[in-house]
Amino acid sequence: MKEIFSFIERRKEAYLAELFDFIRCAGVSCSGENMRQAAQHLCGILRRSGAKRVQILPTSGFPVVYAECITDERLPTMLIYGHYDVQSASDLEKWASNPFSPEIRDGRIYGRGAADNKAQLFAHIKGREAYAAVKGNLPVNVKYLFEGEEEIGSPSLRSFVAENCELLRCDVCYYSDGGYHDSGLPILILGVKGSFYAEITLQGCKQETHAMRAPCLPNPAWRMVDLLASVHMPGGRIAIKGFYDAVRPPSAEQRAAARKIPVNSAALKESYGIARFLGKGDGSDYYERLIFEPAVNLCGIQGGYTGPGFRNIIPRSVTARLDVSLVPKQEPADIFSKLRRHLDEKGFADASLQMIGGAFIPARMSLDSAYVKAARQAVLDGFGVEPIIFPGVGGAGPNDVFLTTLGVPTIGIPYANADQNNHSSDENILLDSFWKGIAASAALIGKLAER
Amino acid sequence: MKEIFSFIERRKEAYLAELFDFIRCAGVSCSGENMRQAAQHLCGILRRSGAKRVQILPTSGFPVVYAECITDERLPTMLIYGHYDVQSASDLEKWASNPFSPEIRDGRIYGRGAADNKAQLFAHIKGREAYAAVKGNLPVNVKYLFEGEEEIGSPSLRSFVAENCELLRCDVCYYSDGGYHDSGLPILILGVKGSFYAEITLQGCKQETHAMRAPCLPNPAWRMVDLLASVHMPGGRIAIKGFYDAVRPPSAEQRAAARKIPVNSAALKESYGIARFLGKGDGSDYYERLIFEPAVNLCGIQGGYTGPGFRNIIPRSVTARLDVSLVPKQEPADIFSKLRRHLDEKGFADASLQMIGGAFIPARMSLDSAYVKAARQAVLDGFGVEPIIFPGVGGAGPNDVFLTTLGVPTIGIPYANADQNNHSSDENILLDSFWKGIAASAALIGKLAER
Repeated sequence: MKEIFSFIERRKEAYLAELFDFIRCAGVSCSGENMRQAAQHLCGILRRSGAKRVQILPTSGFPVVYAECITDERLPTMLIYGHYDVQSASDLEKWASNPFSPEIRDGRIYGRGAADNKAQLFAHIKGREAYAAVKGNLPVNVKYLFEGEEEIGSPSLRSFVAENCELLRCDVCYYSDGGYHDSGLPILILGVKGSFYAEITLQGCKQETHAMRAPCLPNPAWRMVDLLASVHMPGGRIAIKGFYDAVRPPSAEQRAAARKIPVNSAALKESYGIARFLGKGDGSDYYERLIFEPAVNLCGIQGGYTGPGFRNIIPRSVTARLDVSLVPKQEPADIFSKLRRHLDEKGFADASLQMIGGAFIPARMSLDSAYVKAARQAVLDGFGVEPIIFPGVGGAGPNDVFLTTLGVPTIGIPYANADQNNHSSDENILLDSFWKGIAASAALIGKLAER
Repeated sequence: MKEIFSFIERRKEAYLAELFDFIRCAGVSCSGENMRQAAQHLCGILRRSGAKRVQILPTSGFPVVYAECITDERLPTMLIYGHYDVQSASDLEKWASNPFSPEIRDGRIYGRGAADNKAQLFAHIKGREAYAAVKGNLPVNVKYLFEGEEEIGSPSLRSFVAENCELLRCDVCYYSDGGYHDSGLPILILGVKGSFYAEITLQGCKQETHAMRAPCLPNPAWRMVDLLASVHMPGGRIAIKGFYDAVRPPSAEQRAAARKIPVNSAALKESYGIARFLGKGDGSDYYERLIFEPAVNLCGIQGGYTGPGFRNIIPRSVTARLDVSLVPKQEPADIFSKLRRHLDEKGFADASLQMIGGAFIPARMSLDSAYVKAARQAVLDGFGVEPIIFPGVGGAGPNDVFLTTLGVPTIGIPYANADQNNHSSDENILLDSFWKGIAASAALIGKLAER
């Protein structure tokens, strides 16, 4: 690999210039801004890297960019998944520099999409290009699937993959998105949670009315309190009938892996400004809960008047927003209908309940896989340190699309620093992380061939 | 009285002109707009009516307007309480005519303060003036106390009355504020609820954080649900320890009076758009609950994100606003401290709890009083119909200031129609109600002398 790494070393300036152009062309899926240009720009990067069959493929939403490097059908094939869309810049005032004019400060590349996900997918393209340039040929086949809707919940990905199984046929799916562990150590991600987002609304009288009638008229805010208290017990246990029925407990290895993830409780408590965690309280079960515990989170609640001064009213309606996070084998549609039934049975048949946006299916793969081993070795080569194994993460993602629809192991290898500020202002990736990501991507090709 | 009533009949045009000028000069206590002018204008009305010692007396807030007509210290003295301040016009777009340019349409006077409270206090001044003009002398003494802070909760009234007991010494306090029963029948009000308004806030992490951490980090919105559910049982019973301890049940006469108030359940259900009332459900106990049942109303709740689209967050803080309505002998300060203790004991010692605005002490007087009888007869004379006796109302008011501090019976005789729209747009009083109010005010003087 030494030869490849020094090849990469010599091309740093060129990589940066190409990445900066990619960041400049934006591609904001939530507004649709520059999406077509971003897809075309990515095609150019892929073509120049030597990838073949580079194409923009339609979906029911924003298109997918596909490319491949096929050496021999009999060799193992890796699918690299990523996304070319970015979050909106949101509050420009809060950025130290223009989000779409990338710049380097203090060893970091700042710009929208720098970490999420442009530098990370770009590292895979450049790692493979470097490998092929130095070795003359690839010992594996590589396919690229870069979608344009990750930041809006990947609504078209599942059907696209299902309809293109032949094109996407592979032995393993790798993706680089997200960041390292807080400690600065790289990680491997072997699972994600499922999730859906729901809104519940209760109506009371058809108009706001004076609070003095409280002994006589129904108050939808009190009913919402009762409704929510019937769903969620203090401490976090969910009281929806059947909520835990399908939960498949983690294997002994998965649980052991979660326990091995270092937790700096004092630093976490300090950064969140809290005295205790949920669960055991001291944070010792932080990752076990984060990864294995399904949850219903109350993201927002609003009703009546809470503005300046005061108004003595019975609110007309009250709305609550729930984020439901799931673990294997809980199914979003099943849990949603159990929630509906729960509301009906608890006296809230009149509550409106609707899902907002798409749903993610939870997914977790076995730790005991040659593809996990290849990824570990690649990280060790590229980063010079063993990654921490995450049997899952707290967030949701489309892993199940690959794990189930394509039927292949699906492994995340984040290349960004933990303080990447993705989705926020001053998004950035450490230059060092970017170089190491390219190196690890090249190493991954070699390790996959050796596996 | 016939002679007096025809005297009033002949002066209708002049009364209207004088009332319209009074409405034009506004006097909005919540903003302070034109308060001094309104007080001075009222002094002019009182002086022209023949009242003596007309003066603007300072309080810790907006001043009080005082005047008197003393015939003989040995005669009974009635104190007429009212307020010269008005609500803000709020949304001008929603008014059919300028709120401070009164006009008559369809037999109603439209304008801010037309019903609440300018026409009503004005009726008392003109009724007494008419009585004195026709009879040559008054058979009772009359004192006027018109405050400028009723619409902001009468924060200075209690201390003003306490410091001016000698000036305000009287045998009975009458006030005309509020409206008739829905049926159009006039009413007498013999009690009010107490109330205070409180805000509770719970903090979570020091910043909004991603919902995926829900299994690990405290969510102040869930804690607020638990907190509120610990205060209020489904159906309305309050679970604060000791909340009901001081409640003095109504007398048999008071309960019987509440039962006699007609309830048009079908019309109420239609107007509120509800299928059932609280309590028995059919509305048969509507007034008993409204008058005798203390309550904690959830006026508003807000936390996290409920705007367009969605954001997967754990809220940073959540706020709830409570209106607590009390019955004799519950004390606002005592109930407030019981609520604080409840929060501390239920695991919410970290919740901030503060009272917003002033508090009203509940007050209820005996039905069996010569002053009630005088008021009934005056209404019968002025309106041509017996009033419905309300042993209390759902709303709070400063009655206790007179009942306890001055130690006199305190009786409300509303002169406005039920659909007066006070505090809303198109506030109005029926011309017919205005004339009858003046007549009843004159009759009240005669009946008090006869009592």
